[in-house]
Amino acid sequence: MSQTINDIAEIVGGKLIGDGTTEIHRVANIETAQQGEISFVEKAKFAEQAAQTNASCLLVPENFYDELPCPFIQVKNPKLAFAKIAEVLHQPKRKVGIDKTAQIAESAKIGRDVFIGAFVCVGENAEIGDGTQILDGVKISEKVKIGADCFIFQNVVIYENVSIGNRVKLHAGVCLGADGFGFVGDGTNGYIKFPQIGTVVIEDDIEIGANSCVDRGSLGVTRIGKGTKIDNLVQIAHNVTIGERVVIASQTGISGSTIIEDDCVIGGQVGFGDHARVLSGAIIGSKAGVLPGKIVRAGVWWGVPVQPLDEYKRQNALVKSLPRLREEIKELKKQIKEIRGKSG
Amino acid sequence: MSQTINDIAEIVGGKLIGDGTTEIHRVANIETAQQGEISFVEKAKFAEQAAQTNASCLLVPENFYDELPCPFIQVKNPKLAFAKIAEVLHQPKRKVGIDKTAQIAESAKIGRDVFIGAFVCVGENAEIGDGTQILDGVKISEKVKIGADCFIFQNVVIYENVSIGNRVKLHAGVCLGADGFGFVGDGTNGYIKFPQIGTVVIEDDIEIGANSCVDRGSLGVTRIGKGTKIDNLVQIAHNVTIGERVVIASQTGISGSTIIEDDCVIGGQVGFGDHARVLSGAIIGSKAGVLPGKIVRAGVWWGVPVQPLDEYKRQNALVKSLPRLREEIKELKKQIKEIRGKSG
Amino acid sequence: MSQTINDIAEIVGGKLIGDGTTEIHRVANIETAQQGEISFVEKAKFAEQAAQTNASCLLVPENFYDELPCPFIQVKNPKLAFAKIAEVLHQPKRKVGIDKTAQIAESAKIGRDVFIGAFVCVGENAEIGDGTQILDGVKISEKVKIGADCFIFQNVVIYENVSIGNRVKLHAGVCLGADGFGFVGDGTNGYIKFPQIGTVVIEDDIEIGANSCVDRGSLGVTRIGKGTKIDNLVQIAHNVTIGERVVIASQTGISGSTIIEDDCVIGGQVGFGDHARVLSGAIIGSKAGVLPGKIVRAGVWWGVPVQPLDEYKRQNALVKSLPRLREEIKELKKQIKEIRGKSG
Repeated sequence: MSQTINDIAEIVGGKLIGDGTTEIHRVANIETAQQGEISFVEKAKFAEQAAQTNASCLLVPENFYDELPCPFIQVKNPKLAFAKIAEVLHQPKRKVGIDKTAQIAESAKIGRDVFIGAFVCVGENAEIGDGTQILDGVKISEKVKIGADCFIFQNVVIYENVSIGNRVKLHAGVCLGADGFGFVGDGTNGYIKFPQIGTVVIEDDIEIGANSCVDRGSLGVTRIGKGTKIDNLVQIAHNVTIGERVVIASQTGISGSTIIEDDCVIGGQVGFGDHARVLSGAIIGSKAGVLPGKIVRAGVWWGVPVQPLDEYKRQNALVKSLPRLREEIKELKKQIKEIRGKSG
Repeated sequence: MSQTINDIAEIVGGKLIGDGTTEIHRVANIETAQQGEISFVEKAKFAEQAAQTNASCLLVPENFYDELPCPFIQVKNPKLAFAKIAEVLHQPKRKVGIDKTAQIAESAKIGRDVFIGAFVCVGENAEIGDGTQILDGVKISEKVKIGADCFIFQNVVIYENVSIGNRVKLHAGVCLGADGFGFVGDGTNGYIKFPQIGTVVIEDDIEIGANSCVDRGSLGVTRIGKGTKIDNLVQIAHNVTIGERVVIASQTGISGSTIIEDDCVIGGQVGFGDHARVLSGAIIGSKAGVLPGKIVRAGVWWGVPVQPLDEYKRQNALVKSLPRLREEIKELKKQIKEIRGKSG
Repeated sequence: MSQTINDIAEIVGGKLIGDGTTEIHRVANIETAQQGEISFVEKAKFAEQAAQTNASCLLVPENFYDELPCPFIQVKNPKLAFAKIAEVLHQPKRKVGIDKTAQIAESAKIGRDVFIGAFVCVGENAEIGDGTQILDGVKISEKVKIGADCFIFQNVVIYENVSIGNRVKLHAGVCLGADGFGFVGDGTNGYIKFPQIGTVVIEDDIEIGANSCVDRGSLGVTRIGKGTKIDNLVQIAHNVTIGERVVIASQTGISGSTIIEDDCVIGGQVGFGDHARVLSGAIIGSKAGVLPGKIVRAGVWWGVPVQPLDEYKRQNALVKSLPRLREEIKELKKQIKEIRGKSG
């Protein structure tokens, strides 16, 4: 899917300086880019790197103008423009057709231009939308609904009744809709399961990383909002609600019924107790811990238990200053002793 | 598996107030319950919700009596009764038969009324007990023993020689019996593996969440006791012993040879060093860290490294009071300076 | 693969005391070892256990000499000798052949003496080296290169273009080469993906634990060096570089572009921010947190954020001493009040 530099300038809405006829085939790092490749300069301070690039074209900031060894395109946000042009140049491979080994229930509804790989199972009354790519070894249970243009990578497992929107990417080993972790002690012999008969709703344009898990609601729904991006090995428990355009980094765990509103950014290895609520726009640093029931307002949060970043820093500095504090107390003691000696 | 309200009252051993002839088909949340559904009121303070429910029946505490819009059943523990009746109304689907694509070794012993799904492998001399359900894509290695009435969900992998009891549920992507993580430095070129030739024993009535891992013993056994419930993405290392009726939340990791005794409750993202011992009845809060070799007594524990919750809270409060302490020291310095000025 | 004691003494380069003709079949714990089994004594203080063993042979330290119930072999490092002899006695089973259900692209190159199990997929232009064992359900995408004598356990997924060396072990559910977690906010509607078109290079003699994930580089390479050992459920993000002979325990997460140099030892549940650099020989304790961009020198590190273990301990002790500090300040206040009362 190569493009001329002229076409690229038009796609990204930028101003081309130089010759626009060369074909561009790939995106690349500015250090390693070769002929036929395009790269980007995020800030003016990378001018030196830019001057030495072997790329055939660069995306640069609007205020950036230098003698460059190649044509360049001035844009508002070069990194965003680079990502956009990468989407055009590196479109994921799509196939059409159903592998002869796939086991598809007769009652399943398969859309047009769908690909279904080897050793895939599709259960009774499942639905798969147009253009969706189901890779080898995926297991789709009964009554699962998957929208159009999704990529479901190898060995993903989807339990029954789960509902998935359009343009969703589920990476290898993702598990959607397993039982939530809810038990009731019977007072003597152990635990019996609280019913886990709800479902999971994954809205449009969501990406979920490899081996992550989203449990089904116990009685209601576990829901992930449009445009949300989730990294690898993340745990999302029963009845959690995640808003739109939320970003969640790897190995974070979210306990039952917690709500994370739109546009939050959550670091890696964060833990959320149950029934917490993270208000829209909050940013929570990696390894933070949010207590059950806690309400986290917009702003930057850090630590265990979570507190505003400024407070965390101040407190951390105070802890670091403890040796000095101790010295000061010692000195005060000495002085008082002296005073008492004199006046005593 | 619908039941009349009369039958339900009998099953849960409760006292029915109202008409018992209606058929109940499903359990539901009190807010969303509709005709034909049963819900529950955990405490008397939810009386208002109860008065507005559309459910056909409610399970309520023994002391609860109100004008309700539907028949209700007084029981000692409504949540437990609800869980019990959910088990009756929502029995997991069972199938019988062996998919034609499954690869089952001739020497494997398969019980009666077993279901084996598509693309399953069952190795030489493996045994599968009566009624057990092996879902699509599960890989069972040589000499694995699985008891009766288990559910092994899609794409679970069980290495050779692992032994599993009755009524065990392994959710999708669980891995049992991979090599423990033990290596010996050879002093020059790197590491060679300490032998990982032991096994894993999973007793009866255990549930293990999606993508969790239980490693085989190095020379001995990794054992999980009867009735224990383990959440998603949990790591259990070689030679760990977990007692009966232990609950372990998501993303917790337990290092080699650690022992967790009966009836412990372990939060999420907890880490255990090796050779630790958690005595029966201990409760360890989420994100806690237990040092290698540490003995944790009964009681509630918190923090890194783990300490009794009360101490943790006291210490946390003191850290929070550091700004005041610093102010007090400043004030003392000033006063001493004044005194010295006067008396000097 | 049994060996005589004489042969074993030769293999481990030790000095045999006693009769060397007995055949040894297995390694075992010193407490449980039976006839035909060999065990080891790590330190002289285990002499009592050694005196009571039923093993047919013991590996003991060079300075160790006792009346033992069996022949014994003096070696420099008994644990290492034990691991070496275990490798000889317990060689992993190897098979040769390709299961009839495996789907192998015509353009794939398969070496000699390879085993490929049931329901395996091997994509176009993939290469698999001599003697490599690909177990049931593994999914190998296009252009993946796997070296000789590897073990790829059940249901592993390898995305396209990933390159794997010789003698590599990937345990069940490992995912190599999924997209890195990089997105660019578009300022209004959400995120678009930063290109994730790089690859993963796994060098020789590496072991990766069950359900761990290694993401592909965004534009460059995610690389793991020779002889490195990685535990279960570990996350390695895009463009990370890990050196040779590094050990990483379970549930640790390493963010994008971080570098961990040769011979580091990383505990469990450690988190690394992006663009950090861990210099050769550093040891980082479990649950530590390394801030983005941080440089960690050789030595032992602990805590969040990570600090030298000595400092961490000192600081921890000071925090523990806060109650006493508070008492001291109270006492100083009282004394000053007294002084002022007198002199006032």
